[in-house]
Amino acid sequence: MRQLVIVGSLAYDDIETPRGRSGRVLGGAAAYSALAASYFDLSINVISIVGGDFKQEFFDLFSSHNIDLQGVEVHQHEKTFYWAGKYYEDMNQRQTLITDLNVLEKFDPTVPDSYREPDILLLANLSPVVQFKVIKQMNRRPRLIVLDTMDFWIMTMLEELMQVLKEIDLLTINDQEAYMLSGKRTIRAAAEEILKMGPRYLIIKKGEHGALLFSKDKMFFAPALSLPDIFNPTGAGDTFAGGLCGFMATSDDYSFENLKSAVIAGSVLASFTVEKFGTERLASLKQTEIMQRIDDFIELVKFDFPKTSHIFSKTNGQ
Amino acid sequence: MRQLVIVGSLAYDDIETPRGRSGRVLGGAAAYSALAASYFDLSINVISIVGGDFKQEFFDLFSSHNIDLQGVEVHQHEKTFYWAGKYYEDMNQRQTLITDLNVLEKFDPTVPDSYREPDILLLANLSPVVQFKVIKQMNRRPRLIVLDTMDFWIMTMLEELMQVLKEIDLLTINDQEAYMLSGKRTIRAAAEEILKMGPRYLIIKKGEHGALLFSKDKMFFAPALSLPDIFNPTGAGDTFAGGLCGFMATSDDYSFENLKSAVIAGSVLASFTVEKFGTERLASLKQTEIMQRIDDFIELVKFDFPKTSHIFSKTNGQ
Repeated sequence: MRQLVIVGSLAYDDIETPRGRSGRVLGGAAAYSALAASYFDLSINVISIVGGDFKQEFFDLFSSHNIDLQGVEVHQHEKTFYWAGKYYEDMNQRQTLITDLNVLEKFDPTVPDSYREPDILLLANLSPVVQFKVIKQMNRRPRLIVLDTMDFWIMTMLEELMQVLKEIDLLTINDQEAYMLSGKRTIRAAAEEILKMGPRYLIIKKGEHGALLFSKDKMFFAPALSLPDIFNPTGAGDTFAGGLCGFMATSDDYSFENLKSAVIAGSVLASFTVEKFGTERLASLKQTEIMQRIDDFIELVKFDFPKTSHIFSKTNGQ
Repeated sequence: MRQLVIVGSLAYDDIETPRGRSGRVLGGAAAYSALAASYFDLSINVISIVGGDFKQEFFDLFSSHNIDLQGVEVHQHEKTFYWAGKYYEDMNQRQTLITDLNVLEKFDPTVPDSYREPDILLLANLSPVVQFKVIKQMNRRPRLIVLDTMDFWIMTMLEELMQVLKEIDLLTINDQEAYMLSGKRTIRAAAEEILKMGPRYLIIKKGEHGALLFSKDKMFFAPALSLPDIFNPTGAGDTFAGGLCGFMATSDDYSFENLKSAVIAGSVLASFTVEKFGTERLASLKQTEIMQRIDDFIELVKFDFPKTSHIFSKTNGQ
């Protein structure tokens, strides 16, 4: 069984939307990523940090998904990372109300010995300094290193981010962050620029407008599954990354072609996360539901363009 | 050879962008649609109206593309429809500077006898009153009636628009217009509502984010070809509609499945229009270029998701 190590936050989130409030729910990139990956056939190991207020039921939830938590430090006398945010009618807009880093502020992980030779390493959104230190603790280079980041790190720790980008295989980032990081104004120009910074693969996420996968000479587009209704997008990007890594850990095929399917797997998992607050929907999926939605995805994009040239004019454009 | 009749404006456009100005160029929905369709194997017939200032070189351009202009009224002592607009760095935003309807104001076409039994009728963006009158002049119902409209008609002539929607097969509109017309806030909810208004097919265009084709129980997504750079999007929607109808006129297959390929053909043609001002790029295509870009499109979206269930966890989600 292949091994995936996920480094990222565990958190309490408090989400406000025009249609209601979540209360304190389980959140954090590692929570979404690990649960998403858990539906695939692999071993999942999380490196994170929580306070004494992190509920036993969440430890139990991860355990019930066979997620190894040896790498999660518990600081009994401190508090878990807390984020409160507000969404508006247009779900693409959100406002951070409170960010209490709490234990996350001192996160400087020592990677457990049994985590130092993973097949895949997912560095979820965190300080690039922490991300870099984790890579350096590996005994051998993972087959695939995936990194997620956000505008905050691009603005405040660009130099450190550029350093870690040289070490990784795949960067996932949203379109606005891609423009910010590259200084370019179109997706393709941005992708070209970012691929020069180190990673050989790049995924630019466009939220409800889907995602683009790039290598130096290839490009693949995957739409988001168009749902009748999106409840709340918190965690969709982390779910996507976790689903993608989970899928990739089910074979030794790290090619662009196989990454396409991984992008679809990630999109499919993310389409569940947005249906409810927090990890509620993601934590209770059936494989049959996942397979059904993969079929829906295939149905949404498949076509059979006629191979004949008889459709063209006999005179114009010759 | 199947027949396509296109009803729409011919115009002079004057386009200003951060990177330059077009000067007075050939524009109007019928110009883009007819040129796009002309690369397919069909007979194209245009119903429109121009003033005495409409240049001979444009008549010649259409003739050289085998586009029949018998249905184009020329009012020698009046002026052609004129539109001036300004685009900003974000090409999705544009501002209309001048709209001189000129001859278009009195457009009340009599459909030539030879145009009254087309296979496909494309009612490009125009007053729904004119669109309705044209349908009523047909000797027999066309196999496919495609209608394009815009926010202006939704706001000012909703009742007339609703009447014409009952007569057509396929409506193409953009996402913002779909929200406006349906009163819904998500694409899928909007589509469901609009399909109740009459058309059995609906295409919602999302500009650089692609297009969605809907029937009552099916959905298909086609991305826009991600170009390194978009010069100017004027005419992209009209090109899309023309390319779509041109493709559909090359067979007797009016199924949802074949419409998918037509959406791709339309997207491919539109990807050329945005590369230059006006019809310049669209008017001088080679079939080999079009075929190459169809291949690019197929390459952009094709994948082969593993059919095995071995990728899934043996325990989670059972």
